Amino acid sequence: MEKTIKIGLLGFGTVGTGVVRVLRENKYEISRKIGARIMIKTVLVRDTHKKRPYMEGLQLTDNFQTILEDNEIDIIIELMGGLHPAHEYMLQAMEKGKSIVTANKDVVAQFGQEMFETASKHQVDFMFEASVGGGIPIITPLRQCLTANRITEVMGIVNGTTNYMLTKMTQCGSDYTAVLKEAQEKGYAEANPAADVEGLDAARKAAILASLAFNAHIGLDDVSVEGITRITPVDIEYAKELGYVVKLLAIAKDSPEKGVDVRVHPAFLPKNHPLAAVNDVFNAIFVRGNAIGEAMFYGRGAGSLPTASAVLADVIDVARDIVNDTFGRLDCAYFEKKRLCPLEATESAYYVRLLVADQPGVLGAIATAFGEQGVSLNSVIQTRKVDHKAEIVAVTHTVRHAKIEQAVQTLQKLPVVTEVRNVIRVENAQEAV
Amino acid sequence: MEKTIKIGLLGFGTVGTGVVRVLRENKYEISRKIGARIMIKTVLVRDTHKKRPYMEGLQLTDNFQTILEDNEIDIIIELMGGLHPAHEYMLQAMEKGKSIVTANKDVVAQFGQEMFETASKHQVDFMFEASVGGGIPIITPLRQCLTANRITEVMGIVNGTTNYMLTKMTQCGSDYTAVLKEAQEKGYAEANPAADVEGLDAARKAAILASLAFNAHIGLDDVSVEGITRITPVDIEYAKELGYVVKLLAIAKDSPEKGVDVRVHPAFLPKNHPLAAVNDVFNAIFVRGNAIGEAMFYGRGAGSLPTASAVLADVIDVARDIVNDTFGRLDCAYFEKKRLCPLEATESAYYVRLLVADQPGVLGAIATAFGEQGVSLNSVIQTRKVDHKAEIVAVTHTVRHAKIEQAVQTLQKLPVVTEVRNVIRVENAQEAV
Repeated sequence: MEKTIKIGLLGFGTVGTGVVRVLRENKYEISRKIGARIMIKTVLVRDTHKKRPYMEGLQLTDNFQTILEDNEIDIIIELMGGLHPAHEYMLQAMEKGKSIVTANKDVVAQFGQEMFETASKHQVDFMFEASVGGGIPIITPLRQCLTANRITEVMGIVNGTTNYMLTKMTQCGSDYTAVLKEAQEKGYAEANPAADVEGLDAARKAAILASLAFNAHIGLDDVSVEGITRITPVDIEYAKELGYVVKLLAIAKDSPEKGVDVRVHPAFLPKNHPLAAVNDVFNAIFVRGNAIGEAMFYGRGAGSLPTASAVLADVIDVARDIVNDTFGRLDCAYFEKKRLCPLEATESAYYVRLLVADQPGVLGAIATAFGEQGVSLNSVIQTRKVDHKAEIVAVTHTVRHAKIEQAVQTLQKLPVVTEVRNVIRVENAQEAV
Repeated sequence: MEKTIKIGLLGFGTVGTGVVRVLRENKYEISRKIGARIMIKTVLVRDTHKKRPYMEGLQLTDNFQTILEDNEIDIIIELMGGLHPAHEYMLQAMEKGKSIVTANKDVVAQFGQEMFETASKHQVDFMFEASVGGGIPIITPLRQCLTANRITEVMGIVNGTTNYMLTKMTQCGSDYTAVLKEAQEKGYAEANPAADVEGLDAARKAAILASLAFNAHIGLDDVSVEGITRITPVDIEYAKELGYVVKLLAIAKDSPEKGVDVRVHPAFLPKNHPLAAVNDVFNAIFVRGNAIGEAMFYGRGAGSLPTASAVLADVIDVARDIVNDTFGRLDCAYFEKKRLCPLEATESAYYVRLLVADQPGVLGAIATAFGEQGVSLNSVIQTRKVDHKAEIVAVTHTVRHAKIEQAVQTLQKLPVVTEVRNVIRVENAQEAV
């Protein structure tokens, strides 16, 4: 137990503080598991004079060069977030022979390939468990535990903010604006919630998950994205009636016929699907592989200590590599160019909610219009309303996205249709097999 | 991609066939992920003349020495099951410098420490992901992904047979004998179902999980075990009424005050607990740690291909170690002697079902008897029945096991109590925090 492995920490916010705290509290167990001690030597902060919890014994600096040039430091934990300068700092550190542990989904989603190649070239580790699903082990399972599988599908609830909002909308019937305000007050949503509610955060995670699951280069641009801003309490009420819950899903599918299909959007999910019971700020990732069948990984998708748990798992892994004088055991260099499935060719069932004239024969006219576009219906609900208008809700069988778009265009032109109010995908686990 | 790593397979049953099949079907992906080819060279079987699926290209032998003495073979996959001769074969193989991948919960639970020490001494890997939870990654998460945590609790549904039976009893109201027969017909339960229904299979897995989670030597004898044979449709009906489901749980808790408490027994679990929705032959393991909070791992707990997925994940890991010329990265040598919590000192809430005289004042007499033994009640249900008898169901607050035993003894002596019909633990997630 002589060796001490020294770490440079970039960023001392919520997660950084959690990392220092957990490392201190669980020091004994952690060092026993590595066969060496690890210590955070230097922390990069903006303001070296600010008082912070858990800062005793730490050297603070506002100059990255201090850490970069310190040959005692073998591991960099990057928790600054954002693309720049995090991306450049990590590259420079790897060039100096330092291994990287990061929670930075932006950099991994955008520059993943470059990072893996740089790590391989400079014989260091590049680890990023905390970039998806907070504390939930999902990157290691994909890189290691499920490696014998050809993975065909990954489906996850990977954004805690929107899952909290949808859960509240489902449980309390509140509307989007009210739950957003509540989420902001509780600190679950940021003042500018765009990245969360518009699905961008989930899309970055989807790109990372798809890349690892399918051994393919999937970038953020390859992900089709739709957020939760159009979801109303009425849609959620219909979902319940039909036996579904509404979730923001990150979905990645790979099939020899259709190629790789990666998307983030709200979806109706059957109530008995394992993901349907994942509520509040919890995250979960469901994986389907040709050997394992189905597996699911569930836990806290964010927060200081859960994320620190994931960061430190990576640090311990890197430290074990250092102790054993190896690196890149989980080498990610195996990435292929795979054909992408264009959005139009993706397939789902769909929920379509229409405002129509409340008169005899409308239901028939609607069903006929769907049928003429080659869309067959699974169920139709008609709800009478005031002012000579009624709402019709149709759930289709599985159909190509292009067809549903055509059908919606046709419906909009029908004289009896006042408005197509919403179109939401329905992910039926059974049909997806 | 020159190197080929050769494997000896011991046992060619359901899982062995699955391993050969998955290795064949996913050969390309697997070899890319290792940076070397792997192939099964020789298979140990009882009858070398028997025709089997997927046997083309494999060398069969009925003599273990053939594999043991083959210096080309670097990895042994042990799928014979049972303690002997699997235990001896694995020891001999490690002494010859061969790494081990096993699904053998009996050997890991009983001889785990010896196996780890032998592996360490001979500089080989000893891997056993498939010994718990079939395809579900849980051993690697405990040895690697959650290593930064001090784990305080592991709670799992780790036996598919009994979970299938309890699910059917819950969904269809069938009784124990009928569902056992059905499970046997479907091949989910063996002709002699004792190991499953009496909790022994789960107890072995509990010992393995507790050892890894708490870095402690926990043997099978340290686990208190109770099976599902006493569970009746009536208990399941009351559970529903009270907001619970009945599951056979493997529970391991570690606290500085009470020590390590490991047990297998049926329990009432709140309907909203993540484990409550784990049905049929699925397994799941719920983990609580001081950094991650709660996490859960869910999937198929048995079956040819899921178990093969776990076996091959280990094989790939060992192969990566061979390629990188390292071993024992996840060295388990860190095991401590920890104080065990005696059964009497364990704490739960309890469900107690009594047959009593149907006369005024009985409820009061029962409640008083509980109170005099220091057991406070959370809720009481009284159901009137024929023949001047009624059933009373009491659910207690959290209490020491010793106290509930005393209370039951006292109740049995009360003149108004005809019979104490069942006592089942209630695991309240909230109180367990």
